[in-house]
Amino acid sequence: MKTSRLEAFSDGVIAILITIMVLELRVPQGADWAALRPAIPKFMAYVLSFTFLGIYWNNHHHMLHAAERVNGRIMWANLHLLFWLSLMPVTTAWWGESRFAPLPTAVYGVDLVLAGVGYVVLQTAIVAHHGPDSRLAEAIGGDFKGKLSLASYLIAIPLAFWYPYVSSGIYLFVACMWLIPDPRIESRLK
Amino acid sequence: MKTSRLEAFSDGVIAILITIMVLELRVPQGADWAALRPAIPKFMAYVLSFTFLGIYWNNHHHMLHAAERVNGRIMWANLHLLFWLSLMPVTTAWWGESRFAPLPTAVYGVDLVLAGVGYVVLQTAIVAHHGPDSRLAEAIGGDFKGKLSLASYLIAIPLAFWYPYVSSGIYLFVACMWLIPDPRIESRLK
Amino acid sequence: MKTSRLEAFSDGVIAILITIMVLELRVPQGADWAALRPAIPKFMAYVLSFTFLGIYWNNHHHMLHAAERVNGRIMWANLHLLFWLSLMPVTTAWWGESRFAPLPTAVYGVDLVLAGVGYVVLQTAIVAHHGPDSRLAEAIGGDFKGKLSLASYLIAIPLAFWYPYVSSGIYLFVACMWLIPDPRIESRLK
Amino acid sequence: MKTSRLEAFSDGVIAILITIMVLELRVPQGADWAALRPAIPKFMAYVLSFTFLGIYWNNHHHMLHAAERVNGRIMWANLHLLFWLSLMPVTTAWWGESRFAPLPTAVYGVDLVLAGVGYVVLQTAIVAHHGPDSRLAEAIGGDFKGKLSLASYLIAIPLAFWYPYVSSGIYLFVACMWLIPDPRIESRLK
Repeated sequence: MKTSRLEAFSDGVIAILITIMVLELRVPQGADWAALRPAIPKFMAYVLSFTFLGIYWNNHHHMLHAAERVNGRIMWANLHLLFWLSLMPVTTAWWGESRFAPLPTAVYGVDLVLAGVGYVVLQTAIVAHHGPDSRLAEAIGGDFKGKLSLASYLIAIPLAFWYPYVSSGIYLFVACMWLIPDPRIESRLK
Repeated sequence: MKTSRLEAFSDGVIAILITIMVLELRVPQGADWAALRPAIPKFMAYVLSFTFLGIYWNNHHHMLHAAERVNGRIMWANLHLLFWLSLMPVTTAWWGESRFAPLPTAVYGVDLVLAGVGYVVLQTAIVAHHGPDSRLAEAIGGDFKGKLSLASYLIAIPLAFWYPYVSSGIYLFVACMWLIPDPRIESRLK
Repeated sequence: MKTSRLEAFSDGVIAILITIMVLELRVPQGADWAALRPAIPKFMAYVLSFTFLGIYWNNHHHMLHAAERVNGRIMWANLHLLFWLSLMPVTTAWWGESRFAPLPTAVYGVDLVLAGVGYVVLQTAIVAHHGPDSRLAEAIGGDFKGKLSLASYLIAIPLAFWYPYVSSGIYLFVACMWLIPDPRIESRLK
Repeated sequence: MKTSRLEAFSDGVIAILITIMVLELRVPQGADWAALRPAIPKFMAYVLSFTFLGIYWNNHHHMLHAAERVNGRIMWANLHLLFWLSLMPVTTAWWGESRFAPLPTAVYGVDLVLAGVGYVVLQTAIVAHHGPDSRLAEAIGGDFKGKLSLASYLIAIPLAFWYPYVSSGIYLFVACMWLIPDPRIESRLK
């Protein structure tokens, strides 16, 4: 299977996810400010998830672009990642609708950590297929950001049952960390 | 018509299906564990259907990739397959929401068997267009997995009215059987 | 603008339409046959609209494939066609939910006739851009099927207020007429 | 990153947006004219937003087509534009459902102005990457239409609290202004 095919399918799924999320932002009941107020936490959750999906699209694209070939294991690792990403519209909507209540905040974090693990699994499968001395393996290096993200989520999830706003802040911090463009793969490829 | 066009359209439809299914996973009403519990069977049904659609995407891609040309009959056989796949979001949601009740379990199986028949019809149309001595016809061979799947569904559907959990287990078994990557077409192409 | 771009966008929109229509097939309330019964007319309407969108995708693809270049007028004529097609999920759902009641049957026909007119407008814009002596203009010829479809819709719409089932039968007849593959453009291109 | 990738992703998102908007056009409750009446303002809002998304797709395509290379800043400026466009299904539905009430009319305008600003930011990022003497920078020129659109929105938003119909008319005027094909980039490229 060609890399381009997997890229196109993944891009398609992420483009659909990032777009249908808006369908969970229900139309306010009524036409005044009071009707708009309950939409605010949901909108905030939407902004964060839009950013996360944008980050995944960007990093996923760079990684697959650096890959040269794909096997069955990579294909299923990729679908596994897309599975956890595909839950984001629902976990986001629940998180926002509950106004960042403990359980939904934790569940949102569980989805983030499983998507993060899915990304690492995919990365490992691609590196295994290209060899530890490949350009890609070098470029990924220690993957400090990836490890810090997973660690942050693992702290935020139990914390959500006591301090859900702190956990929400941790998710925001991780997104900001990734928004800074990742020079690892790009610079090595030059 | 070029094969690439049919591939792109089918990939698009499957990518959309696998993604919009999540919209049927309604946001839980309430923010506690009690609100989350009814979502569990629906989530399990979602996992299985995501896997089935992933399998179809993978096999469909391999088959169309091996094909060299497309005619009107192949195009309509392909749309026929996509039709039964397109019902999966609804049959999945009904199956999960009913907590695997008899009728929804049977209906889910009917959708699976019709998609399976649609796949065989498409395969037959492609083989007929390429000739029985083509690389593709050889690669498909006896299609043991395909036949076993259809037979399993045909047992599971009537069984669902007495033992819906057994039928559900049969669907799970078929998915697991296909998750093992299919070396038939791939190996012959080498 | 390249033809391929317009083709890809249109294919994308039609693939999404044909897929999201299923979201209007609501999950039955309850798990028995009684719950399934109200879904039957909606399912029948869904089958017909899936077929119509498949026909549009096929014919649209052949027409754009025969085209060599695109201008602003063609682009907007194409968006105009997509607009009427984009209403099909809603008109279909209303038609099916009402069990083919007079007004929804007429409205469904109005959408079909406007999509049909949109197709003719697009065809005319493409022919005008390529010249009346072009391969495409020849291939389209008298467009007997297109004219018969529009005439059938125009009879079916007023008839729907007295005999909605007859109008529904006319829509079915038009779909069947188009399901027979259109040899006009294909054969001329050879 | 190649321009084609960004184009494909953006085209995908816009194709999905323009299509899922129809899901907010709820199926009328009942099968008579009275049931259809509340759908009319929503339908009118839908027509306008379909047109706006068509305009964005067209202009965005021309701009990215003229671009030769993409960097991280352009990629995020593009996602920022897509974010505001992705809210259009919800702001449109609220605007139409409220029958063009003051607050929803203003919110619809806020979404339009932020999408417009997002477009300008993207344009600026692309020009900055290609240099002020590039073909693209020349082609954009003074961007009179873009500035007039933003100014119109900024007048329409506060006005909506007193004369929402006048504001709605201003949105309609901006759409009509853009429907006239934009010869700037096209003509310069020749």
